[in-house]
Amino acid sequence: MEKLGDVLKFFMEPRSVAVVGVSRKSGPDSFNLMENMLRSGFQGEVFPVNPQADMILGVKAYSRIREIHRPVDLAVITLPRDLVVPTIRECGAAGVKAAIVVGQGFADADAAGKRLQMQIAEIARAGGPRVLGPNTLGVVNNFNSFTTSFMPLSRDKAPIGLVCQSGLFFVGADNFTGKIGKGIDIGNACDVGFCECLEYLGRDRGVEVIAVHMEGVRHGRKFLSIAQRVARQKPIVVFKTGESESGARAAASHSGSMAGDFVVCRTALRQAGLLFLHQGDKMGDAVRTLLHQPPLKGDRIAVITATGAGGIAASDALERYGLRLARLRPETLRVLGALSPEWMPLGNPLDTWPSVMTHGIRETYRQTLRAVLADPEVDGVLCISLALDPDEYAFLDASGVLSDEVDPCVKKPVVAWFYGPFTNEITEKFEGIKGLSAYHTVDRAAWALSLLRERARVVE
Amino acid sequence: MEKLGDVLKFFMEPRSVAVVGVSRKSGPDSFNLMENMLRSGFQGEVFPVNPQADMILGVKAYSRIREIHRPVDLAVITLPRDLVVPTIRECGAAGVKAAIVVGQGFADADAAGKRLQMQIAEIARAGGPRVLGPNTLGVVNNFNSFTTSFMPLSRDKAPIGLVCQSGLFFVGADNFTGKIGKGIDIGNACDVGFCECLEYLGRDRGVEVIAVHMEGVRHGRKFLSIAQRVARQKPIVVFKTGESESGARAAASHSGSMAGDFVVCRTALRQAGLLFLHQGDKMGDAVRTLLHQPPLKGDRIAVITATGAGGIAASDALERYGLRLARLRPETLRVLGALSPEWMPLGNPLDTWPSVMTHGIRETYRQTLRAVLADPEVDGVLCISLALDPDEYAFLDASGVLSDEVDPCVKKPVVAWFYGPFTNEITEKFEGIKGLSAYHTVDRAAWALSLLRERARVVE
Repeated sequence: MEKLGDVLKFFMEPRSVAVVGVSRKSGPDSFNLMENMLRSGFQGEVFPVNPQADMILGVKAYSRIREIHRPVDLAVITLPRDLVVPTIRECGAAGVKAAIVVGQGFADADAAGKRLQMQIAEIARAGGPRVLGPNTLGVVNNFNSFTTSFMPLSRDKAPIGLVCQSGLFFVGADNFTGKIGKGIDIGNACDVGFCECLEYLGRDRGVEVIAVHMEGVRHGRKFLSIAQRVARQKPIVVFKTGESESGARAAASHSGSMAGDFVVCRTALRQAGLLFLHQGDKMGDAVRTLLHQPPLKGDRIAVITATGAGGIAASDALERYGLRLARLRPETLRVLGALSPEWMPLGNPLDTWPSVMTHGIRETYRQTLRAVLADPEVDGVLCISLALDPDEYAFLDASGVLSDEVDPCVKKPVVAWFYGPFTNEITEKFEGIKGLSAYHTVDRAAWALSLLRERARVVE
Repeated sequence: MEKLGDVLKFFMEPRSVAVVGVSRKSGPDSFNLMENMLRSGFQGEVFPVNPQADMILGVKAYSRIREIHRPVDLAVITLPRDLVVPTIRECGAAGVKAAIVVGQGFADADAAGKRLQMQIAEIARAGGPRVLGPNTLGVVNNFNSFTTSFMPLSRDKAPIGLVCQSGLFFVGADNFTGKIGKGIDIGNACDVGFCECLEYLGRDRGVEVIAVHMEGVRHGRKFLSIAQRVARQKPIVVFKTGESESGARAAASHSGSMAGDFVVCRTALRQAGLLFLHQGDKMGDAVRTLLHQPPLKGDRIAVITATGAGGIAASDALERYGLRLARLRPETLRVLGALSPEWMPLGNPLDTWPSVMTHGIRETYRQTLRAVLADPEVDGVLCISLALDPDEYAFLDASGVLSDEVDPCVKKPVVAWFYGPFTNEITEKFEGIKGLSAYHTVDRAAWALSLLRERARVVE
C-alpha cells in the first residue's frame, strides 16, 4: 500500500533531477543551486534546463523539459513567478514526478501571488507533479549527498531529520538543530506539507530525532494523528513561531501561514506527544539530549556540585522546570560524608568541594556518582564541575570520571554543567556519549532533564 | 569624611599582605594562593606566615604575625577553622587593617561554625581588623594585578566590577560576567558586605558596570539606599538565587544566608533601580549590552532581517519582553520598497532577502539601517543577518556595514543576531563597538533591548 510519505522519495532520493532556470553564472555570489548540488557529490543524473545555454557547469543543457527525453524524478524550478505555472504543467506532461518551486512572490506576497500558488496546488492535486514550496530552499539529504539549496550547508550524516518553513533553519542549522542529516523546507507548503514529511522521517531508520519549525499547519486532524503515531517511535521536537500577535501577522506575510491560536495549537501538539519549544535556541540542546539520553522516569534529581552557589542555582532551575531534589538515602549521603570534614552539612545538593580539596575531584566524583546512580530514590543526576585548562588542571577535571562511571544500562539520565574558561571544549567532548550530556549553563542542564521527563510521559 | 566603602582599599589595593597558614607546597594542585598572588604580578610586600618554614616561594617566612614588625594592610588567613579566631585577634593586636578568612566550616556548616563566625564578626565590630568572608576566594583587582584567589583567574582590566557570594563567579567568570576588572567574593559576609562593596565600586572610575550575585542580604534598608544612589551613576545587574524553596534551603547551608522572600526582594531591588536577572547565564549579555549601548528611550523597535522566519521569531521575542514593532513612516518603507520586487509586501519586520539577492547585502543593509535610524517612530533596531564563512561569502556579510552605519551620537541601540556557522566569530567581533552589539540568539538580542528599556527607566 502506498503511504503518504512515499512521495518524499522523489524529493529526497531522486535518480534524476532537472534544474529549470539555472543560471550560467557560478561562484559563491551566483546563488547557483546546480553548482551547489554538484559540489555536494550527488551521484544521480542532472539536467540543466536553460534555453540560452548549450552547456552549464560542464553539463549538456536543454532548452525545455520535454526535450530531455529521459525519466525525470524531480524538477527544481528557479524561475520568475510568472513562468512557474506553465513550467509545472510542462513537468506534468513530461511525467516528472516531483517539483520544487524555489522562488518567492506567491502566498508570501500579494493577491496575484496567492492566485498563482493556488494554480500550482491545483495542478498537483489533479495528478501533476507533487510540489514542494513555493518559497523554499528545497531539501538536503546528506545520506546520499543531495541538496537543492542555493546556500552552502554542512554535510553531516547526523541521525537528525528536520522539517521547516524557512531556509533559516538550513543555513542557520548551527543555531538550531546543530546538524542536519535530512532536511525538508516546505516553504509556503501549497502541496507537500508536514504530514508527508513526518511520515517519511518517521519511517526512516537513519533518523532518530525529528525537529520541526512550524509557522502554521493545515489538515490539523490528519497531522495530529500522524504525529502521535510517529512520536511514539521517535521524539519530535517542535518550534512553533507566531506566538505573539505581531509574529502571527508576520507569519501571514512570510509563508502565507495562518498561525492559528497559539495556545490551542500548543496544547494539541503536546497531547499528541510532541515536545514543544517556545524558543528556537533550545532546539540544539533538545536534539542532543534526546539522541543521547534515556527518558527520565520520575522527577527526583540528585545534584552533585563542586560549588555551593551552583547547587543553589541548580535547585532554582530544577524547580523552575517542574523537577525536585531527591531525598537521598542515608547510605548515599554517608559516601560523601566519609570524604568530607565532620562539620560538613550533608544533603542534596551534594557539595563536594571540601572533599575535592582533600581527596581530589576524581575520587570524589567517582564515589558520589556511583552512590546516587545506585540510589532508588534518584531518577536523574545533575553534575556541576570545573572547566579549567585540561593541561594544567587535569587533577580538577571530573569529565573523564563521569564518562567512565555513566552506565547506559542504568537508564538514568546524567546531565552536566562545567563552569570555567573551558566550558565550550568540555561540553563538546560529550557529544556522542550515551547516557551523558553537558550543557553551557546549569539552567539548560536542568531544562534538558525536564524535556526527558516530558519524553517519558509520551513513551510510558 | 570617611565613607563606608573606604575599607575596601585595604582589601583591593593593599600595600602589604600577610598570608597566614600558607603551605610550602606549590604547583597547580597545591591551591597555594600566595603562589597565585605572586604570579599575578602584585607589586606590594608579601609576608608568608608559617611556623614550620623559613622561606616560602623564595620569600622570608614569619612564624607569627606579630613578628613581621612592619605595617600590614591585609592578612589572608588559610587556616583550619579552630585557629581563625585567635589569629584575627592577633591581627588586631598587630594593627592589621583587614583580614580575609578563606576557609569553610563557619555559618555554612554546623552550630560550632556559626559560633566561630559570630566571634569573628564581634572582633571586627570591636575595632579589630575588618573581615571579608569566611568561605571566600577573597578579591581580584586586575588594575593593580592583585588577587587572593587560590584558583586561577583571568587578568582582564575590564571596566566590570563584581560582588558575589561564591568563588563560582570568579572561576566561572566566562559563564557569568565574561570578564572581571575588580571582584569581591563576600562569602558568608560576617562583616564586610554588599553595602561597602557597592559604595566602593560605585565610586571607582574604572568600573562602568557592576554585577552582583546575591544569596541573601542583611541591612536591607541601608543596602537599598546605597544601591539606589549608585544605580543612578552606573548600571547594577543582580543575579539573585534562592528563588525556589529548595534553593533557599540550600543557600542557608552554603553561605549561611537567609534568602528572604524572593518576590519582595526582587520588587525592592527593582524599585531601587537595579536590573534583576532570573538566570545567571544572562549576566554576560547584560554586562556587554550595558557597556556598549545607550538606554532604550521607548518601546518601538524596527526589525531588519534577511530571513522572514527570523523576523517572526524576532516579533515573538520582542513581545515576550514587553517591546513592540515600530510603525515605520512611509518614507522609511519606501527605501526598502525601491530595492525590492513590486510584489513584495512592505512592513516591519523589514524583509530584505529579495533585495539582498539583487542589490547585495551591503547596499540593502546600509540604506535600510540609515532609514530606520532616521525614523522618529523608531527607538531601537534589531538586525538579523547571515554568519557565513567571511572568506568565501564576504558579499553576504552585513557586519561591516552595521559597524560603519551605527552612529553612537544617534543614541538608538542597535542589536544584531547573525545566524549560520560563523555566529560565534561575528558575535565576538562586535565586542567593544559603541552603539552596536551582537548576540548568539534572536531571543537574547530582543531581551537585551528590554534590559536597555529598563535601564532607561532608571536614569530618566
